[in-house]
Amino acid sequence: MGERQKPWKTLDTTRLWESRWYNLRQDRVRIHTGDEITYTFQEHPGAVFIVPVTPDGEVVLLRQYRYPVGEWLWEVPAGAVEGDEDLEAAARRELAEEIGGTAAEMRYVGHFFAASSISNLRDDVFLATGVRLGQSAREPTELIEIKTVPLADALAMARRGEIKDGESALALLWCETLLRAGPKKPGSF
Amino acid sequence: MGERQKPWKTLDTTRLWESRWYNLRQDRVRIHTGDEITYTFQEHPGAVFIVPVTPDGEVVLLRQYRYPVGEWLWEVPAGAVEGDEDLEAAARRELAEEIGGTAAEMRYVGHFFAASSISNLRDDVFLATGVRLGQSAREPTELIEIKTVPLADALAMARRGEIKDGESALALLWCETLLRAGPKKPGSF
Repeated sequence: MGERQKPWKTLDTTRLWESRWYNLRQDRVRIHTGDEITYTFQEHPGAVFIVPVTPDGEVVLLRQYRYPVGEWLWEVPAGAVEGDEDLEAAARRELAEEIGGTAAEMRYVGHFFAASSISNLRDDVFLATGVRLGQSAREPTELIEIKTVPLADALAMARRGEIKDGESALALLWCETLLRAGPKKPGSF
Repeated sequence: MGERQKPWKTLDTTRLWESRWYNLRQDRVRIHTGDEITYTFQEHPGAVFIVPVTPDGEVVLLRQYRYPVGEWLWEVPAGAVEGDEDLEAAARRELAEEIGGTAAEMRYVGHFFAASSISNLRDDVFLATGVRLGQSAREPTELIEIKTVPLADALAMARRGEIKDGESALALLWCETLLRAGPKKPGSF
């Protein structure tokens, strides 16, 4: 948004809570009216979302238990960026950790903000093609079920609200435009 | 997800920080392996996202400064549910507050979770049709710019990643299927 200024100025920053996953950050801010306010938000290192497509044109979905919402949700592989890790490296690492996948090609799709009024969480989306599945290296607290579905079915699930993990649904729908352009290389998808 | 049990049991709950917008909630949890862990997440009352379509078939978008991400983002009207307010009432209230809008019809679209691993934030999406604009009753800290764009343009913005507020982009794309079904009543959109 280069054509616009930031109308608010950060006066100071404190962290009310810190963890390896995210912090609760509280800023004192001078807003456009000249008033001072306190703004408290979740400070997150950012995440990558990967839409994995196999050589047969199927999408690999996960069903995962999400404690905060108390439900099992269909998702695509995703995870937080670690340290100063390159985004594509993070995407390849998460693909391997969550579904034991390797991708012939990893295409960058774009980014969005997951909940911009209360978190700085930025999600960067990748389309992984030519994906082959192997052994995953899951973290022990994750309960994950994996299935592959035809691309058209995965997109329909995302469009019809059957994928209730919002970040995953949007990642899938953003890949649709790219995927509709057809195979990049014969046989690779 | 009625066919599946919740595999984790909440042992106790504390709130590390509380506000009128959300809390930072920390639970002690017994997970499926029998181990006890601590899970800390954002506890939110839930929000409504409204896709407002005018009688001329234009979508009303807002551009808003979002302090946590430091950017001006294109969005649809949205806001937190207050108290035990009915979801449709919340949607009509936010439509009035943010763009001074009134809707001839408010159709429920569905819900998603904005960031299911770190927040319980649930977004309920409404499609508002026959929307007429009046005077908005904005909160003083909100910097909002309003414009109406043809429906096809708004959907293209959401599909191409030009709407970087993820919740708004998904709300728009979820309405696309409903809108493609065509006008409910002649002349109403």
